[in-house]
Amino acid sequence: MLSVKTPEEVLEIINKEFDFSMQPEEVSIFEASGRVLAEPVISEENVPTFNRSTVDGYALAASDTFGCSDSIPALMNVKGQVLMGEDGADIRLGIGECAYVPTGGAIPEGADAVVMIEYVEDYKDGTVGIQKPIAPGGNIIFKGDDVFPGKEVLPKGRLLNSADIGALAALGILKVTVSPRPLVGIISTGDELVDIDETPKDGQIRDVNSAMLSAFIQEAGGSARMYGIVQDDEAILRAALEKALDECDMVLISGGSSVGTKDATCRIIEEKGEILLHGIAMKPGKPTILGKADGKPVFGLPGHPVAAFFVSRLFVSAMLRKMLGQTSALRTVSAQISEAVSANHGRAQYMGVTLSEKEGRTIASPVHTKSGLITSLAGTDGFFCIDRDCEGLSAGSEIQIITF
Amino acid sequence: MLSVKTPEEVLEIINKEFDFSMQPEEVSIFEASGRVLAEPVISEENVPTFNRSTVDGYALAASDTFGCSDSIPALMNVKGQVLMGEDGADIRLGIGECAYVPTGGAIPEGADAVVMIEYVEDYKDGTVGIQKPIAPGGNIIFKGDDVFPGKEVLPKGRLLNSADIGALAALGILKVTVSPRPLVGIISTGDELVDIDETPKDGQIRDVNSAMLSAFIQEAGGSARMYGIVQDDEAILRAALEKALDECDMVLISGGSSVGTKDATCRIIEEKGEILLHGIAMKPGKPTILGKADGKPVFGLPGHPVAAFFVSRLFVSAMLRKMLGQTSALRTVSAQISEAVSANHGRAQYMGVTLSEKEGRTIASPVHTKSGLITSLAGTDGFFCIDRDCEGLSAGSEIQIITF
Repeated sequence: MLSVKTPEEVLEIINKEFDFSMQPEEVSIFEASGRVLAEPVISEENVPTFNRSTVDGYALAASDTFGCSDSIPALMNVKGQVLMGEDGADIRLGIGECAYVPTGGAIPEGADAVVMIEYVEDYKDGTVGIQKPIAPGGNIIFKGDDVFPGKEVLPKGRLLNSADIGALAALGILKVTVSPRPLVGIISTGDELVDIDETPKDGQIRDVNSAMLSAFIQEAGGSARMYGIVQDDEAILRAALEKALDECDMVLISGGSSVGTKDATCRIIEEKGEILLHGIAMKPGKPTILGKADGKPVFGLPGHPVAAFFVSRLFVSAMLRKMLGQTSALRTVSAQISEAVSANHGRAQYMGVTLSEKEGRTIASPVHTKSGLITSLAGTDGFFCIDRDCEGLSAGSEIQIITF
Repeated sequence: MLSVKTPEEVLEIINKEFDFSMQPEEVSIFEASGRVLAEPVISEENVPTFNRSTVDGYALAASDTFGCSDSIPALMNVKGQVLMGEDGADIRLGIGECAYVPTGGAIPEGADAVVMIEYVEDYKDGTVGIQKPIAPGGNIIFKGDDVFPGKEVLPKGRLLNSADIGALAALGILKVTVSPRPLVGIISTGDELVDIDETPKDGQIRDVNSAMLSAFIQEAGGSARMYGIVQDDEAILRAALEKALDECDMVLISGGSSVGTKDATCRIIEEKGEILLHGIAMKPGKPTILGKADGKPVFGLPGHPVAAFFVSRLFVSAMLRKMLGQTSALRTVSAQISEAVSANHGRAQYMGVTLSEKEGRTIASPVHTKSGLITSLAGTDGFFCIDRDCEGLSAGSEIQIITF
């Protein structure tokens, strides 16, 4: 019998014991939001692509302005005006010449600075007076200042969002190489399970986990394939697990309330690999198994939907991130707990919360339920952990919420 | 000329001026994650569906235990044992009788309390001794305690997640009524724009906004339809806008760097409705138009991708939430700013950040860029606002980040 692991140890096992090398795929940037980069994106271009002005003003040679002032402006001939969307190189400036350039406009040849319009007096006769000297490079962003060929724009493992897509478009990158969506097989076991559309008799329960886990896998960037409800029978379970292992990248078996089913699950995994943990020191979620079969992760999740939910959010999602090569961590939100929570000994305890705003603070209200059934999580916004060493939290304590 | 509005006023306009009544649609709970409820979900069932024990112990009539103690236990006959997944009503208990019930097991008829196994001595002859009295209802969760027929389980406007899907499955609800995904038309204007796969000549820029806005609309729960790049010509713009208004629920026109295009956009909107605002006191993002044409919202977004991005994140998303009837607000994360930020006068200023963890605190590092180009937002995790009245932030100040 393997010992029970702490949540931290489980994350370590996931990190150490598994090594995925899934074939990356190329997708259009129009379909890339929410996908994870399998390779870094390296620019082949400069940003900006030309020297441009950061202000509305007059482009000129900075040396022409040295020594000028309010009272003794530098007199310059206006050679023209750069329009947005036009090629600034049409104008060439010599000594004593300048050109009007709008913000973002191209800097004409011969200019190495732009004087803001506030410091220029227009004499309306084709000449202007510059009232303030400027240093070379002033108010110009040069070609390649932000991005240059060879620069890494986005790292491998980045979960792409619409701002990233915008940056890719700006660089002329139409396709990116991303990790494939892991295919996750879902098996529900237990003689007490009935389909969702049936009315359970006393002692029976609906197969909540298939629907919930399938939705969760999609939220976490995978694809789900369901293998239905499997009765508590070793031969049937073996056939289902073998099929799922054959077709999928990871398998979740939930339930198996009978000791026989748990044991059968372990036996089948051990034939094809090994059991890595048998029990997690958390509440709810203790009766969790993690194994490796044919090199693929197999989770034996608790049948209790709330327990299966927390284990999935914490550990199945960590496995998915590892498969995807996703580098970003779970993002948490700081909140004040609305009421005192009593101490918890020996096991990390997870509790659902609803979030609200009060005087600019985020308030987390723990959800109370007598049953601990999955309906208690309906309408919640996230959850938090009461550490196993925690001696209780007073009302108003700062806690970290993992949001849904 | 309409006056420039503050960000708060823009949200008020969105809230007051638009009233959407889109035909809701029914979807399977297997496809419902990420959708918004158009109707509240009302339970037709009880949760739990039967009276169940919250502990491992002996079910009995509480009155049988009154007056018992360690030294004078109440002697009871064990009538049997309730198994998980079995119908508890098989056993009927009379006076002086009890039955073993595991946690979650059904309470037999005749019992109104469960004494925890710790307070029961088993004499191994079919009788047990109860060492502690219990009140009626003790350690029982009654049918309907959590949820009962007619109870609202999830409110209208809820953005569904996998925990909600689990709750729906538990209640036997296979389909939910959700808001349709709003179809958003995207038009890019400007003679300086070229397709993403082209190499811009000096003064030209790639059409970044079509790709970025399309990705953003999908992230925010809508569907995007692209109408391509439209030249700065009133007749062509009119034809594109009329087509988009005809086919879509909202239209985004980005760009139009020339005054002529902005004016033409306004004229076309005014023929079909009205301009609601012309300019937002924010940076970047000032040159934004919002109008109503054929009763539908039309945004005239800045051509500058960073400005278009912030305006979309703040106001296009607010409009989408209003169309979807989505009640949840933008979720923010508290973070400490890594460095001092200088004051900003007159306009709310938005800045991208990267987030990191340091000694249990979330640190937000503002992204510096000379160009303010969209590539500067690549790899950022969110953004924050420097209020228009802010006199600067010192390093370590607490700020609220809107995450991507």
